[in-house]
Amino acid sequence: MSVAKEFEAANANYVASFTKGDLQLPPQRKVAVVACMDARLDPARALGLEEGDAHVIRNAGGRVSDALRSIIISQQLLGTREIVIVHHTNCGMLTFTDDVLRNKVRDELHQNVDHIAFLPFNDLEKSVQEDVKLLKESPLVLDVPVTGYVYEVETGKIVKIDSQ
Amino acid sequence: MSVAKEFEAANANYVASFTKGDLQLPPQRKVAVVACMDARLDPARALGLEEGDAHVIRNAGGRVSDALRSIIISQQLLGTREIVIVHHTNCGMLTFTDDVLRNKVRDELHQNVDHIAFLPFNDLEKSVQEDVKLLKESPLVLDVPVTGYVYEVETGKIVKIDSQ
Repeated sequence: MSVAKEFEAANANYVASFTKGDLQLPPQRKVAVVACMDARLDPARALGLEEGDAHVIRNAGGRVSDALRSIIISQQLLGTREIVIVHHTNCGMLTFTDDVLRNKVRDELHQNVDHIAFLPFNDLEKSVQEDVKLLKESPLVLDVPVTGYVYEVETGKIVKIDSQ
Repeated sequence: MSVAKEFEAANANYVASFTKGDLQLPPQRKVAVVACMDARLDPARALGLEEGDAHVIRNAGGRVSDALRSIIISQQLLGTREIVIVHHTNCGMLTFTDDVLRNKVRDELHQNVDHIAFLPFNDLEKSVQEDVKLLKESPLVLDVPVTGYVYEVETGKIVKIDSQ
């Protein structure tokens, strides 16, 4: 069975007890979360989010440079006024370099992706600090509170790294 | 109180009952979900995902063209072999055009973002079909099952639009 079919079965249970049909489009808590796509991190459970609370933007690494389009839409059209960044321990982004992945894609898919910055990092805390700084300095992002955390996949805990 | 502080308080509860510290880095169910950042959509609850199950990539609209970096990393380095796309009813992406948002940013932030494609759409089912097609035709994406859904924010239900 495809995972999609399993999702449909699980969704039928969600629908059966669904009570959130009246929520408004703009996030109620006026916050955008930028987090890694990692399977072990569930931002809603780990941060106490209910449906309707927050925009949740996720990508490989939780890198803000790859989230700017979404952040501009979140702030300019949907009223969010705070940003929280969540990177995490044991991240896949710590395990490769652009060259390694570009060579793999060239060898296996016969495609040149030298134009893609895959945004890996080798220092977890620094990656959070860099991303907080990038948002604070971007002329495309409103001057709002930005807080950056490392989520510990071993404990479930978020550890604050930077707040500006 | 900042929302970040509220997240720290909620996280303390999460940590207190945390039992998932031994999960592996690669997603156990070998699937990547690409979904909208919308606050009303919680992919984990709506699709029955537990920590460790799936990569969850989220951006404004759940557009795959803005998720390619993450999808390549997910497939090439972390072994996912199925993709599920989730757009949704009452999406903010149905409410504007590139010109509207570019003008707003020019007027209010005094910045030119004519180079940014914000990827809005005016037909919800077509946006899902387009994104399924884009993945199936991309030479950078493995030939894996791709299923596209519309999530109904009014009912919690996912409705299958396309499967290839």
